Amino acid sequence: MEPVPVAEILQRQADLQEMLADAEIELALIRQAADLYYYSSVIVDGFLALGPAGDPLLLVRRPQQRLQELDLPFPVAFYRDIRDVPRILGQVGLGHNGAIGAELDVMPALLYRRLHEELFPQRSIVDLTMMIRKQRMIKSAYEIAQIRRAAAILDETLEEAARLIRPGLSELELSAALEYHLRLAGHQGLVRTRTWNLEMFFGHVLSGAAGIQAAYVETPSGGTGFSHGFPQGAGTKRLAVGEPISVDLAACVNGYIADETRLYVLGDLPEAACKALELVERLFELYEVEAQVGSLPGEIYQRLRGEVKAAGLEDYFMGVGRDRVFFLGHGVGLELDEYPLITAKFPFPLAADMVIAFEPKFFLPEIGMVGFEDTGRITAAGVEWLTRSPRRVWQLR
Amino acid sequence: MEPVPVAEILQRQADLQEMLADAEIELALIRQAADLYYYSSVIVDGFLALGPAGDPLLLVRRPQQRLQELDLPFPVAFYRDIRDVPRILGQVGLGHNGAIGAELDVMPALLYRRLHEELFPQRSIVDLTMMIRKQRMIKSAYEIAQIRRAAAILDETLEEAARLIRPGLSELELSAALEYHLRLAGHQGLVRTRTWNLEMFFGHVLSGAAGIQAAYVETPSGGTGFSHGFPQGAGTKRLAVGEPISVDLAACVNGYIADETRLYVLGDLPEAACKALELVERLFELYEVEAQVGSLPGEIYQRLRGEVKAAGLEDYFMGVGRDRVFFLGHGVGLELDEYPLITAKFPFPLAADMVIAFEPKFFLPEIGMVGFEDTGRITAAGVEWLTRSPRRVWQLR
Repeated sequence: MEPVPVAEILQRQADLQEMLADAEIELALIRQAADLYYYSSVIVDGFLALGPAGDPLLLVRRPQQRLQELDLPFPVAFYRDIRDVPRILGQVGLGHNGAIGAELDVMPALLYRRLHEELFPQRSIVDLTMMIRKQRMIKSAYEIAQIRRAAAILDETLEEAARLIRPGLSELELSAALEYHLRLAGHQGLVRTRTWNLEMFFGHVLSGAAGIQAAYVETPSGGTGFSHGFPQGAGTKRLAVGEPISVDLAACVNGYIADETRLYVLGDLPEAACKALELVERLFELYEVEAQVGSLPGEIYQRLRGEVKAAGLEDYFMGVGRDRVFFLGHGVGLELDEYPLITAKFPFPLAADMVIAFEPKFFLPEIGMVGFEDTGRITAAGVEWLTRSPRRVWQLR
Repeated sequence: MEPVPVAEILQRQADLQEMLADAEIELALIRQAADLYYYSSVIVDGFLALGPAGDPLLLVRRPQQRLQELDLPFPVAFYRDIRDVPRILGQVGLGHNGAIGAELDVMPALLYRRLHEELFPQRSIVDLTMMIRKQRMIKSAYEIAQIRRAAAILDETLEEAARLIRPGLSELELSAALEYHLRLAGHQGLVRTRTWNLEMFFGHVLSGAAGIQAAYVETPSGGTGFSHGFPQGAGTKRLAVGEPISVDLAACVNGYIADETRLYVLGDLPEAACKALELVERLFELYEVEAQVGSLPGEIYQRLRGEVKAAGLEDYFMGVGRDRVFFLGHGVGLELDEYPLITAKFPFPLAADMVIAFEPKFFLPEIGMVGFEDTGRITAAGVEWLTRSPRRVWQLR
């Protein structure tokens, strides 16, 4: 197994510590799996405790044996009962007084109340969400290398899709075959999301007019799935001639996600689909012009939406009618729903080494979804695309 | 797609309303995917709002189009901004005053604070966790039928494993092939868990001595995975002669989970493994005697642990050393980690139609994990096993 470079971890910790010092937070308690992995290089049942200066302490409930054998560049302590955590922290001079920071966007309310009422009574518990998400939205060279690896297996899987697609194959059969392909190529399986109830399993393989159905998740495509128990993604519908077939998948290597959508058709696409795809191509060109270091996401969003409006297709852009989503792209990294967001109001300008999945998509009634998605890195020289399959419809005979 | 029976949904809502009335809770707001599905038969971005009497109201942010077309046996209202929720509820006489109940074990702290400080200020927000988990731990005939279907595809997949296993195949290759098999058989893919950070992807395919490693998740088996980014489950280790090969998978049909573990060996198991398996067989026999309607989980736990202790194997039971887990079984249903738990202190007696995955397992140093897991229903006539593969080691030549 490939460890995260030690220098990388120490730098991430130091950067968070600097933000804690600025915000006068005396103790950060990191517990969510993706954040723990980011700041400590391991995933445990426990907490990474950091003050604004000095050594952090990794508090581990489980697995104890495995963690004892690891050579981590910071101290580790073990516990069984969460009630012992304040005492253990106190012994190393962490958390005596001052504000405590926690991941309040993902921490369950009961645990929050326990921290607040029982473990650290009369202490203010402040939210670390923005601090963490802002730090994590700028990727290191190591992180970009991992996303590149995820992108490579995704490119290869989307080519495989072109070999598999045939009339009569169901969406589920195609999805399952591509999932299998991704797993053998090193996909970890689990795709992490941060937003509560934003459930995801690999992605969405959809076809034809039924494929434009929105789901409960805040994604442009949805689909119905094949059961009310998980109403999104591939269904049992069979692939048919003349329909757009969209494969939107996430691959995940060493924790890092790449996200890509490609289109396929058996035979020919309807004229309206081809016209919408010309606009998609134009939106990619515009995005490459607009997505510069320093650009405001809100301006990119308005510029591209203006183009869509001028073409009269706004009601079908990024969903249908009231179920449209109001972003054109989203950050990816350890989670599928990272910062930045290309929305009207996202508050931070683009910066070098942000990694964004850009996905202009049209949902055409009686036809289906047409659009592409690519994961790209913001650089001083423009967008560097990390997913690299040819951005064209795979036309299959 | 098969809808959940209407009578079933209305009964579940009525039962919750009765508990709300008893607890003097004026409004329950249900939002988590599994709970929403349980109480409303749909999964939306929104809330099911129930008072102690009268019609509930399903508040839907998305998908609006699809929900408008459904014929649900209760009213539905649509919103875009969560700040409109109290007003919409007020219009139908819900939530004017009194305590508000929410799923505080899974609701993020920020949303909880928002309910408390902004949306329903000066109102007490109480926790519905125990109420919901207690209700959901008793399964209806419909629910048991779904778990039976999940169990059937799981049985069939565990037989398929016996056909696939050969020396040199990696754990990941075996796991991926079984995942593919399950998907084609109708597994929805996603396996829901309730506990924060209890991540799961299908389950754990492990082999040999390395397979006894514990992971961060509160499960007896763990494994290292093949990346620090998701350190559990199948790794790249290759299957070898004479090692226990364990396949612990969850299948999920119409939202409902069955959980099963079977063992395989190429050639012969070591003598110590066979002896431990005799004890496993004895523990299943004891469990069938002890797991009666009205039995206390704590007594079952002590009785079985006593047997293990008498055999001198307690240090290797349900994990290794300090990484052992302290349950012998767990409820399954819409989530993998439901009530009841067979632990020393679980507070409720067993009741008819609880569905429990019972998994006595030994983690033998230098050998590997040996044990079985079956999902069974508690009935007045004893345990009815829903997973039904022969409970024996598949010995492969």
